[in-house]
Amino acid sequence: MIIQFKQPVNQAVLQEILRKLKDAHYHGILVKNHLVIFDVAHLELTPREQAAIADVITEQPRYVLGSRVFHPEDTIIQTAHNRIGGQQFTVMAGPCSVENQAMITDLAAKVKAAGATVIRGGAYKPRTSPYDFQGLGETGLRYLRAAADQQGLDVITEVMSIDEIAVAAPYTDIFQIGARNMQNFDLLKAVGKAGKPVALKRGLAATIDEMLNAAEYIAAQGNLQIMLVERGIRSFDSTYTRNVLDVGGIAVLRKLSHYPVIVDPSHASGHADLVAPLAKAGVAAGAQGMLVEVHQDPAKALSDAAQQLTPAQFAPLVQQVQQIHALLQQPLTSDLQTPAQSTATTAPVDHD
Amino acid sequence: MIIQFKQPVNQAVLQEILRKLKDAHYHGILVKNHLVIFDVAHLELTPREQAAIADVITEQPRYVLGSRVFHPEDTIIQTAHNRIGGQQFTVMAGPCSVENQAMITDLAAKVKAAGATVIRGGAYKPRTSPYDFQGLGETGLRYLRAAADQQGLDVITEVMSIDEIAVAAPYTDIFQIGARNMQNFDLLKAVGKAGKPVALKRGLAATIDEMLNAAEYIAAQGNLQIMLVERGIRSFDSTYTRNVLDVGGIAVLRKLSHYPVIVDPSHASGHADLVAPLAKAGVAAGAQGMLVEVHQDPAKALSDAAQQLTPAQFAPLVQQVQQIHALLQQPLTSDLQTPAQSTATTAPVDHD
Amino acid sequence: MIIQFKQPVNQAVLQEILRKLKDAHYHGILVKNHLVIFDVAHLELTPREQAAIADVITEQPRYVLGSRVFHPEDTIIQTAHNRIGGQQFTVMAGPCSVENQAMITDLAAKVKAAGATVIRGGAYKPRTSPYDFQGLGETGLRYLRAAADQQGLDVITEVMSIDEIAVAAPYTDIFQIGARNMQNFDLLKAVGKAGKPVALKRGLAATIDEMLNAAEYIAAQGNLQIMLVERGIRSFDSTYTRNVLDVGGIAVLRKLSHYPVIVDPSHASGHADLVAPLAKAGVAAGAQGMLVEVHQDPAKALSDAAQQLTPAQFAPLVQQVQQIHALLQQPLTSDLQTPAQSTATTAPVDHD
Amino acid sequence: MIIQFKQPVNQAVLQEILRKLKDAHYHGILVKNHLVIFDVAHLELTPREQAAIADVITEQPRYVLGSRVFHPEDTIIQTAHNRIGGQQFTVMAGPCSVENQAMITDLAAKVKAAGATVIRGGAYKPRTSPYDFQGLGETGLRYLRAAADQQGLDVITEVMSIDEIAVAAPYTDIFQIGARNMQNFDLLKAVGKAGKPVALKRGLAATIDEMLNAAEYIAAQGNLQIMLVERGIRSFDSTYTRNVLDVGGIAVLRKLSHYPVIVDPSHASGHADLVAPLAKAGVAAGAQGMLVEVHQDPAKALSDAAQQLTPAQFAPLVQQVQQIHALLQQPLTSDLQTPAQSTATTAPVDHD
Repeated sequence: MIIQFKQPVNQAVLQEILRKLKDAHYHGILVKNHLVIFDVAHLELTPREQAAIADVITEQPRYVLGSRVFHPEDTIIQTAHNRIGGQQFTVMAGPCSVENQAMITDLAAKVKAAGATVIRGGAYKPRTSPYDFQGLGETGLRYLRAAADQQGLDVITEVMSIDEIAVAAPYTDIFQIGARNMQNFDLLKAVGKAGKPVALKRGLAATIDEMLNAAEYIAAQGNLQIMLVERGIRSFDSTYTRNVLDVGGIAVLRKLSHYPVIVDPSHASGHADLVAPLAKAGVAAGAQGMLVEVHQDPAKALSDAAQQLTPAQFAPLVQQVQQIHALLQQPLTSDLQTPAQSTATTAPVDHD
Repeated sequence: MIIQFKQPVNQAVLQEILRKLKDAHYHGILVKNHLVIFDVAHLELTPREQAAIADVITEQPRYVLGSRVFHPEDTIIQTAHNRIGGQQFTVMAGPCSVENQAMITDLAAKVKAAGATVIRGGAYKPRTSPYDFQGLGETGLRYLRAAADQQGLDVITEVMSIDEIAVAAPYTDIFQIGARNMQNFDLLKAVGKAGKPVALKRGLAATIDEMLNAAEYIAAQGNLQIMLVERGIRSFDSTYTRNVLDVGGIAVLRKLSHYPVIVDPSHASGHADLVAPLAKAGVAAGAQGMLVEVHQDPAKALSDAAQQLTPAQFAPLVQQVQQIHALLQQPLTSDLQTPAQSTATTAPVDHD
Repeated sequence: MIIQFKQPVNQAVLQEILRKLKDAHYHGILVKNHLVIFDVAHLELTPREQAAIADVITEQPRYVLGSRVFHPEDTIIQTAHNRIGGQQFTVMAGPCSVENQAMITDLAAKVKAAGATVIRGGAYKPRTSPYDFQGLGETGLRYLRAAADQQGLDVITEVMSIDEIAVAAPYTDIFQIGARNMQNFDLLKAVGKAGKPVALKRGLAATIDEMLNAAEYIAAQGNLQIMLVERGIRSFDSTYTRNVLDVGGIAVLRKLSHYPVIVDPSHASGHADLVAPLAKAGVAAGAQGMLVEVHQDPAKALSDAAQQLTPAQFAPLVQQVQQIHALLQQPLTSDLQTPAQSTATTAPVDHD
Repeated sequence: MIIQFKQPVNQAVLQEILRKLKDAHYHGILVKNHLVIFDVAHLELTPREQAAIADVITEQPRYVLGSRVFHPEDTIIQTAHNRIGGQQFTVMAGPCSVENQAMITDLAAKVKAAGATVIRGGAYKPRTSPYDFQGLGETGLRYLRAAADQQGLDVITEVMSIDEIAVAAPYTDIFQIGARNMQNFDLLKAVGKAGKPVALKRGLAATIDEMLNAAEYIAAQGNLQIMLVERGIRSFDSTYTRNVLDVGGIAVLRKLSHYPVIVDPSHASGHADLVAPLAKAGVAAGAQGMLVEVHQDPAKALSDAAQQLTPAQFAPLVQQVQQIHALLQQPLTSDLQTPAQSTATTAPVDHD
């Protein structure tokens, strides 16, 4: 529920309502002159309170800070070396895991030469099994930062727990929240407080609304420097692709939200020879950046051996993706329709 | 199981083995000097038979006629007005249902002007409910054919039952098999015998292997003029998109099979304003054609009101899709890898 | 849309409206004094027509004949040897495929001894690959009928095409429509006309509403002798179970519809050692019968080798399932709630 | 990879190998005389090391502590008031959220009277939106503990972050890890160290192997007091049930693992009138306990309004579920098969 106050907001009434909510263990947030609160049926308002209120909105999606309704223009995220979002296309690349200093130093030069402006690399790895390689931790972060600084690149790296945020902060420009943690709400709040850009990956079976509500946990801490990463969702068929890249989801996120949308074709495909078509599909659907795993010798990688590209495979892909992105900067009639027009229909549908 | 005969094939032995199979109610097909049969563990071969055999292949996928292993080069389908497949990009468009003569005659001119060379239109409609509009039947086919001939377009239309094949044959250039019928095996056999090109749509929850095996039912009748249509698969989230367009599936089909692959963004999205990004994503992933629903006044359509484009929305989309297709005709290193490299890996994977 | 006429129905007006619909290529069906028609926004009614109409219902689900709204009491299907539905529990068992006369004759005796009153057996097999064993056809049906008659059992067997209905009719008591054909609408209409009981299997990714609408195609032909078979749906995990048995779907079907609901644990599990727990779960959720694959020597079966039970495994299962069914005949408070109470909620949900 | 040492283990060689692994940033754990390590292809062993090794196992699933291969007998978890697992059936019930002291005190008496021996109640709530009710925190835990002690019940409550473990420890007997956190690996390690029983809920789209590997993170900390909770998985159809209860998953977990398996019908259904059939299905499939949401006045609940039972609905359900459980204590032939027999088959399957 959103309570829209008359301008100027009657502070006395606002405080009064906030107190009522607090007593009932409800939470709220003020956006401009809108008070967004937990959807409470039985909030009683005095006539005096009602007099201060312009409107009560119940239809609005529960992600408010992330919605174009309150923030129509694209968010642009400014980092040391990049402007991410809007008409920009940002290439982020690097190994799944930082394995040692030599490999990351060498890769930083290679991905930069190919057109990347952000380097990725895992130091804390979310692994299915406790017996899998878990990453180099802070040592890996130090290698990663040094390699990035040599090349003038931004760093993106994943944090899996609240403690790791403080450890990683000095080394990274962008915090990545992995798919497994998309609804780790305490981690989202903590990274929201950390005050650096956050790349939020879509959960394996997260709906678009769940992803935008997860982003809202970060935004509600005052941090709107959020990127939304589509990395493929789970389906009934994983014979040839580990996940299904939801290109429709990319288009929907672009329309509903003002945050930059990034495609991760590596985790969507799970196989190196599918990374290129998925990357191209993602940018064609509207992605404003891509996050690609690159390794000098994928077969010897300590993780994700099957899906990492060689620098030789990566370079031509960057060129082609950038050409498609450039091509798409001329708007299409059918892209200009409003979100309202994309709400689900009840009209009978055929199935050919 | 595939029995590869020594060249020249020993006809006596071949006949002998075929007889054995028939007695055991097994079925087989001879491709060049390869006998493809139901995977029978306990087929006993005499020494004389074994002497005539070069090899017994058990690893090969069960779709043989559709596989690049036996047919490496792209299949090109020649129709009255089109060459479909290979480096071509074919635009197929028209209404969900043929509603009357005036609308289809008018639309044929409009989609042709926009760049379409094949017109679609449903005369027999697979509808979820028996109380929904079921289509005009043969009357609709007559309208569709006349409109196509006026404009020099090919016709594609769906058949839902064996009887409809004979009725539709004089009016259509391409038979469409809908998603609901992808594994209607008797219909597949019948359309395979009809000797016209067939566009086979992927089932709502069909795996890539099931789709290629369904195509094999058509091919086993001697008809290799098959198009594979990706139209979106079912997922856990249909709030904003009716289905999830499996762009990875498009790339996999291009690699495993030699048949032309077509993208249907209309049924994948379910919403007009998502058709454009999905169409672009599909061609970027490797589709060699697109099948799009276009209607003069979608809001008044008798079916699929929500997802049909107006001619004004369709025209710029065709241009942009054709530009992307042209761009992609320069091959990418990472696209040139062999199917072997895309088989599933067992290497431990991470989940960021 | 449902037009409810005042009693007695004004036949002149009814015919007039039916004519209007026909001219517009719409279809309708009269249930008691209710005319169920394709949901047409712009049907114009004259004042005289309006005067004959009591109400226009737009909320009602589109499956009307199958709904408890119009038919509150359970449907009981009377066959030669069984009363299926209501408080009855019917055991149907037999091999995946009829392989020869000896095996089916022997199995008929064994499944009867274990408590089955209907024998199953495939003569026409829907196989993923055209090179798989396709079944014995009419020969198999003859063996099946003879075996059933010897033991006083009903026969259930699958038909995959319209032609097979006439062939199979003399041999079977119940037509089975397989999951692949759940939305083969012409087959549904044809089997609806055949006037024998029909067991309709849920499609691999069919929603409950799609299944009830598919049943409506059969019912709209005047045949309400329908059984709904839950046989598992597709999910993201098929490592240990081929499909996921949707026990919630069984409970929902029992509540929304009056047709008997049958559980097929064999196809849901795909593995013999999971058939027992799934069968028990299905009956515990409200199934009124079970359809189980039994084979003398599963390892040598020509199809479904992995999932068929031996007679020795089947017999104790029947006892235990019947005990659970008997236990459940005392109603539970929470089972007596009305369908209205199970409609989706918009209240915020937690995710623990 | 598992290195099985000859008995007695050569400690010098063991230490040597552990050092090698550490240098390469690999991790391992010793189970009896088995060293379980990250699957490293290129670990070089000296002849002296090889001489100390009995076998190298590469086939074994990566969850070792949780597998019946190493621990054939059921794990029984002893708490203050319960023995959970084996032949026991444990009823856990209570509100979604602890809303105030009066409601939880009253509910504790009611669920105990109905047969529950563990009370549930959320104090820290994982909510999709930051604007939803987030729970009473430690105040709620205090109310919950007091209510449980009055009735002689154990407490189960969810922790969402590492910090909450220390706060909740004095108040709870069982830590619950929610579906959203199933792969929050740092939380799993922390709760593993806390030394209290843990109820691990299956993720929304987690495979059985992922769930057992998540449990392995807890077990690898030396804590084998783990319960596995099936609470429904995501599917393509959520019209009538929020999730699909995977009863096959319950049966598979019982077979592969020795941990107690609990069914949560409340989150699986999402609707009160489906809780009973799902609970019964879960116990019929082999669940050793159930976790049910109960509230005095569900319609007024601050969360999960739609799915909570009233005490009057809950009481007869407990009776019936306990009757089914008692019935199932006589083993079935088909239940006694070994895990080996349930591995996926490659035999051609039919689809009726």
